[in-house]
Amino acid sequence: MNIPTSNHPRVVIIGAGFAGIAIAKKLRNKNLQVVLLDKHNYHTFQPLLYQVATGGLEAGSIAYPIRKVIQEYKDFYFRLTSVKEIDTVNQKVISEIGDLHYDYLVIATGSKTNYFGNKEIERNAMSMKTIPQSLNIRSLILENFEQAVLVKDEAERNLLINFVLVGAGPTGVELAGALAEMKKAILQKDYPDLDIDKMQINLIQSGDRVLNTMSEKSSAEAEQFLLDLGVKIWKNVRVTNYDGKTVTTNSDLVFDTATVIWTAGVQGAKVAGLNAKSLVEKVERIRVNQYNQVVGYENIFAIGDIASMETELFPQGHPMMAQPAIQQGVLLGENLVNLIQNKPMKAFEYNDRGSMATIGRNLAVVDLPNYHFSGIFAWFVWMFVHLFSLIGFKNKAVVFLNWVYNYIRLDREGRLIVRPFKKRSFTTFTSDEI
Amino acid sequence: MNIPTSNHPRVVIIGAGFAGIAIAKKLRNKNLQVVLLDKHNYHTFQPLLYQVATGGLEAGSIAYPIRKVIQEYKDFYFRLTSVKEIDTVNQKVISEIGDLHYDYLVIATGSKTNYFGNKEIERNAMSMKTIPQSLNIRSLILENFEQAVLVKDEAERNLLINFVLVGAGPTGVELAGALAEMKKAILQKDYPDLDIDKMQINLIQSGDRVLNTMSEKSSAEAEQFLLDLGVKIWKNVRVTNYDGKTVTTNSDLVFDTATVIWTAGVQGAKVAGLNAKSLVEKVERIRVNQYNQVVGYENIFAIGDIASMETELFPQGHPMMAQPAIQQGVLLGENLVNLIQNKPMKAFEYNDRGSMATIGRNLAVVDLPNYHFSGIFAWFVWMFVHLFSLIGFKNKAVVFLNWVYNYIRLDREGRLIVRPFKKRSFTTFTSDEI
Repeated sequence: MNIPTSNHPRVVIIGAGFAGIAIAKKLRNKNLQVVLLDKHNYHTFQPLLYQVATGGLEAGSIAYPIRKVIQEYKDFYFRLTSVKEIDTVNQKVISEIGDLHYDYLVIATGSKTNYFGNKEIERNAMSMKTIPQSLNIRSLILENFEQAVLVKDEAERNLLINFVLVGAGPTGVELAGALAEMKKAILQKDYPDLDIDKMQINLIQSGDRVLNTMSEKSSAEAEQFLLDLGVKIWKNVRVTNYDGKTVTTNSDLVFDTATVIWTAGVQGAKVAGLNAKSLVEKVERIRVNQYNQVVGYENIFAIGDIASMETELFPQGHPMMAQPAIQQGVLLGENLVNLIQNKPMKAFEYNDRGSMATIGRNLAVVDLPNYHFSGIFAWFVWMFVHLFSLIGFKNKAVVFLNWVYNYIRLDREGRLIVRPFKKRSFTTFTSDEI
Repeated sequence: MNIPTSNHPRVVIIGAGFAGIAIAKKLRNKNLQVVLLDKHNYHTFQPLLYQVATGGLEAGSIAYPIRKVIQEYKDFYFRLTSVKEIDTVNQKVISEIGDLHYDYLVIATGSKTNYFGNKEIERNAMSMKTIPQSLNIRSLILENFEQAVLVKDEAERNLLINFVLVGAGPTGVELAGALAEMKKAILQKDYPDLDIDKMQINLIQSGDRVLNTMSEKSSAEAEQFLLDLGVKIWKNVRVTNYDGKTVTTNSDLVFDTATVIWTAGVQGAKVAGLNAKSLVEKVERIRVNQYNQVVGYENIFAIGDIASMETELFPQGHPMMAQPAIQQGVLLGENLVNLIQNKPMKAFEYNDRGSMATIGRNLAVVDLPNYHFSGIFAWFVWMFVHLFSLIGFKNKAVVFLNWVYNYIRLDREGRLIVRPFKKRSFTTFTSDEI
């Protein structure tokens, strides 16, 4: 990878998501050589991907150049690549652009969509974990409507304007709300020759409530907000297949639709080469101890979504969200410096600051550790927390400006098909390649 | 195309560029049925494409949803499609999504890059007429640098960081200036392990001055600005070929480069089906009379870049720029309404408001009909003219915010490879070489 040799121990970080960026910042100018690897040249603020998908924000507003983050860090390198495998015996990362020796390895590869092994759903449904995927969803939604105006057969037209979202976690709920608002405020006006009332937004959940990682109060309120917006909610329904036209379920229920957005599950974006016993089956996460040290290795660590730290409070690992990722990144940054200086490391303790989800204009739910609230104040809290979590002043300012504009004008001017999305059922390429 | 029948005569407009949007606005609620066709669902503000290509602006900031422009117009339709041919006998537009009868046809298809018949240049060079093309250029520039840090062979590395721009019109000059500023303010910091001084920006011009449609004063000043920024200018040099690695010219001069951006010529984006005598050879424009009526047809009109109205002052037609396009669109809008009401039409007269180009921070040249100025004041004039020409308040505000930020911080945070551009010559690098 053409990294110069250094007198300092080399730390290789794989992934520049919340966890990777957090530790990168902590390792700044700490007498270490650091090499940060990512398959994108930007950090993605994933919680706002759904707004990119629905035309409320431009992709650039929630992305930040990784090289800019580390611009003034000494002996600090970024390489744009995908990691293929880890050679733990020779302490090497094997990537598309060559091998790299590490003294310490930090795996922060995050998570990817989990289709639970169903290849047909994977082929036909849309996923929303990256910016290209969000832009594909945006293109597909708009292409559906452009196509719908041309179609004379009603059943075929309904197929195009029927949206099925599988999974009612924060992503599914926020996307459903945003689609419902698009329907009301924009699509109605943009497509006067379509009967937009026929547009359906179906949210399918295998469990018995939406937002099932939040409080029951939040679930109930979010559900009511969604229903008020016209979203159809299907609880206790498990999707069994989607062939590109029809969603089948574990009941008699079927949905004819050209668009399924799958947010029903995530799994660790694991890297090959680790010991089998350090992996948690099915969820594909990496088992770590309280120092985020990968089980069975001295000098390999995992943080963020990919790491599963089994504690009393979290027997299956921490929730796969930004907060644990950032906190683990920050702590491991400090711990690594201590470890190298032979000082003791500190055990990770998750500081749960609460969780929140927005459903639409003036509608959000917030669970603080001891307090729950919802409605317009929750919505403002949601906005400002997200705004201030964005990296960079310009992104904050542009997002703020867009939100103010969208709020006042009830608009989303990002409804642009910049790169047409060719639906997978027509060709064979995957959404990331376009 | 599923357009309802109407009691009003139907006007079909092909293209929603400056000319198409200008006439569309004029035909609003005029007892006509209007169908606007475009292959994108957005209008592109082409003068700022170079800023998208160099990461200064997001694509969404210079694009505007076409459906939003016509949202409240009565009996007004938009269809997303490419036109294949015009059947002038049966008065039909033949498109990818079906045929459409017209009573009046307005061709506003604009222009496309002219490679003067050289297929090899066309295959290997980059063009910058659309947003996807600008995003491809952005990706390619950044990918070149990401690759350059990996390459150990100096000649190969130089290939990647040597940029050749062919054509020194406004687009070539503005792009050269923007690249020079990126080199100084960003790439230097982003790639500390590269010797950025080795990066070359070569601007090749077949004529004897840059900006040859502007005043000689502007040309001389722009040239000096570019030289001060470190751009190498090659005048009186004609590019003869580019095989993906080497640019050959009509002299001994050759350039080894992985990136050629071709802005050396434009030609009309003509539509098939018109009489041969209504076409101007080589430039592929459509010959129109002083009412923008296509020669040989009563009810077919052409406006903007595609239209060639040969006048005493402009024996080869008006310059292919925004101003004549907008003015022709506005006038034809009024003339069409008059024509249909059997009132006389008004002949087009171009009101030349001057022209301008920006070279970089605080550097621009402005030619007014009777006055020339340059430098920081010209630069402010350039900015505000472009800002206020953008459609929509939000785009204006976001562009303004970006410019203020970029100006103060000397930055361009849009340096994101959102959709990788896979260039063919990249395959010459094997993983061993990396």
